[in-house]
Amino acid sequence: MTTVPEADTTAGSAADVAADPVREPARQRTFAWEDPSAIAAAGAGRSGAEMLAAWQTGTLPPPPIMRTLDFDGATFGEGSAAFRLTPREFHYNPLGTVHGGVLATLLDSACGCAVHSLLPAGVFYTSLDLTLKFLRPVTIQTGQITAEAGVTHLGRRTALAEGRLTDAAGRLYATAISSCLVMHPA
Amino acid sequence: MTTVPEADTTAGSAADVAADPVREPARQRTFAWEDPSAIAAAGAGRSGAEMLAAWQTGTLPPPPIMRTLDFDGATFGEGSAAFRLTPREFHYNPLGTVHGGVLATLLDSACGCAVHSLLPAGVFYTSLDLTLKFLRPVTIQTGQITAEAGVTHLGRRTALAEGRLTDAAGRLYATAISSCLVMHPA
Amino acid sequence: MTTVPEADTTAGSAADVAADPVREPARQRTFAWEDPSAIAAAGAGRSGAEMLAAWQTGTLPPPPIMRTLDFDGATFGEGSAAFRLTPREFHYNPLGTVHGGVLATLLDSACGCAVHSLLPAGVFYTSLDLTLKFLRPVTIQTGQITAEAGVTHLGRRTALAEGRLTDAAGRLYATAISSCLVMHPA
Amino acid sequence: MTTVPEADTTAGSAADVAADPVREPARQRTFAWEDPSAIAAAGAGRSGAEMLAAWQTGTLPPPPIMRTLDFDGATFGEGSAAFRLTPREFHYNPLGTVHGGVLATLLDSACGCAVHSLLPAGVFYTSLDLTLKFLRPVTIQTGQITAEAGVTHLGRRTALAEGRLTDAAGRLYATAISSCLVMHPA
Repeated sequence: MTTVPEADTTAGSAADVAADPVREPARQRTFAWEDPSAIAAAGAGRSGAEMLAAWQTGTLPPPPIMRTLDFDGATFGEGSAAFRLTPREFHYNPLGTVHGGVLATLLDSACGCAVHSLLPAGVFYTSLDLTLKFLRPVTIQTGQITAEAGVTHLGRRTALAEGRLTDAAGRLYATAISSCLVMHPA
Repeated sequence: MTTVPEADTTAGSAADVAADPVREPARQRTFAWEDPSAIAAAGAGRSGAEMLAAWQTGTLPPPPIMRTLDFDGATFGEGSAAFRLTPREFHYNPLGTVHGGVLATLLDSACGCAVHSLLPAGVFYTSLDLTLKFLRPVTIQTGQITAEAGVTHLGRRTALAEGRLTDAAGRLYATAISSCLVMHPA
Repeated sequence: MTTVPEADTTAGSAADVAADPVREPARQRTFAWEDPSAIAAAGAGRSGAEMLAAWQTGTLPPPPIMRTLDFDGATFGEGSAAFRLTPREFHYNPLGTVHGGVLATLLDSACGCAVHSLLPAGVFYTSLDLTLKFLRPVTIQTGQITAEAGVTHLGRRTALAEGRLTDAAGRLYATAISSCLVMHPA
Repeated sequence: MTTVPEADTTAGSAADVAADPVREPARQRTFAWEDPSAIAAAGAGRSGAEMLAAWQTGTLPPPPIMRTLDFDGATFGEGSAAFRLTPREFHYNPLGTVHGGVLATLLDSACGCAVHSLLPAGVFYTSLDLTLKFLRPVTIQTGQITAEAGVTHLGRRTALAEGRLTDAAGRLYATAISSCLVMHPA
């Protein structure tokens, strides 16, 4: 495992920054994550609730995307899930607000885990879709935001979850709905 | 197991990693970005096409989220936009595939910039919604993926863009539609 | 104004029925409606709440589509609306259930009127979209169904309404969300 | 004011009309349909393509909703479907345009039948959702409109169809996407 900062080889990124001495000094961030295949494998023999509990207590590491986007944490209930994030500059889009994709990641996580929390061992799910409504811009000044989702409908073949993204004062920034396919062993 | 000091100070992350000596060594990545307020400010006097051209030629830095998620690059046309990304482990969800939120970020970027490319200076837009359909899982084995979007409708007050996410062979992984609000100066 | 049943001149409809003596006898229904331009004109000087009250008390006739699909009635509150319908055979699709478009009509009506109920005189709205989730089939055996909607967000330029379709026992059959554009006088 | 006995006995409708002598004379329409259970039963042993062909040639009657809303007709291909309708006053909402639910019915029909056309005998589908974008109002002046849909993705468990609603000149009025669940025999 390298201890050297990974050279970013994407076209024009690190190079651009170095090449332009009059630009604002670049901000930099280093983050770490763990092998996600271990997480996926751990899911095989556990119910959704057991899986999420293992994750919450730290028995299992969080999925890499939570580290990449610097999620603050998550909380799970029976048929519900909440993910928290504090907006940072590295979440920003070109319009000067948190990118809608970051909000999508929070809300998709909450919707998916809310469904997962109700599934017994051996039953799996996958997200078929995600519909997001953006109601207000999120910025660093917004402070910590929370995406909470609950399961509206759990059928044999499909499930529907609905999520809301709010700040600490309960102000609503976005909503989401997601249909999941529920897959039983053959 | 890494002993590298993790810059990430979010609750419970660095601590978790240090506390568990039998865990897989953590992977690590360092990335840099530039002050996004300069990008947003640069948009004030330029048309969407000028803004996107400045970005593509490197006159303006890319928005931070592109660095955070390690986008490969972007291409813009008149009423169209494409964003590319090579799936990496740090994009993964707990199911062992690229998180839907990463695909959402690519598709939302493509839809938004496709609309932006048609707006004259002084006219702004904001995304009202994003509807995503996930058709197949994306993994590291998928190789580079591209989100391409085009403008289906541009009215005085709203615009509609549609996007598709494909691999190098043209295989379809997800679709998106997004309504944008178009705002003219008072 | 004719009092003769309108000859249905659409390709192959009335003619088909008459031409085939071994078929089940066709069912038939006659319904009436009133000039909708009077309804639209009446909206010019009234707030949404006044308009909906005039409609509910019978001062204004219901819109034609309510007669065409045989809605049972509607109820309005401040930021809410409910439409009721008793499923009949003439609402059916080829799969032997109420067509999703009938549920869409109920839910779109409820979402739109919920938004309308909050608008002052001179401010208008139009529906930008409607996202429906179908959770269970609706049949004649379901009995009366009610589409209830409430306003989740009312901004200066847009509004968001959410609706649910339930039977008399409160069982959920479908959900809807709708974004509306809010238009102020120039 | 009409004295024609209205067949419609839903609460408050016939009574309203009779009670108001100064109102515009009501318009009236009579339509017929056939037992939809025969249509549903006929589907059991046929592929989607056979079913749709039987419907198009008149071997099977159209589903009741097509008569209720006075569809002009339908055309089917392999993985595609189109439904036509000429806007009439009885399709109108209170805003003086064709109700979004009528457009939803056309587009949902087109999306569902496009998927159905690809399914072998014994394989069934149901619509999970419908997302509609309304781009322009449809009125009687629009003339005949056509909802055309095609299948974007057909997987083992789900399918995705996309539809567009246009007038005779090809002008776009609305779009739709619909996910369907595909059900194989146990």
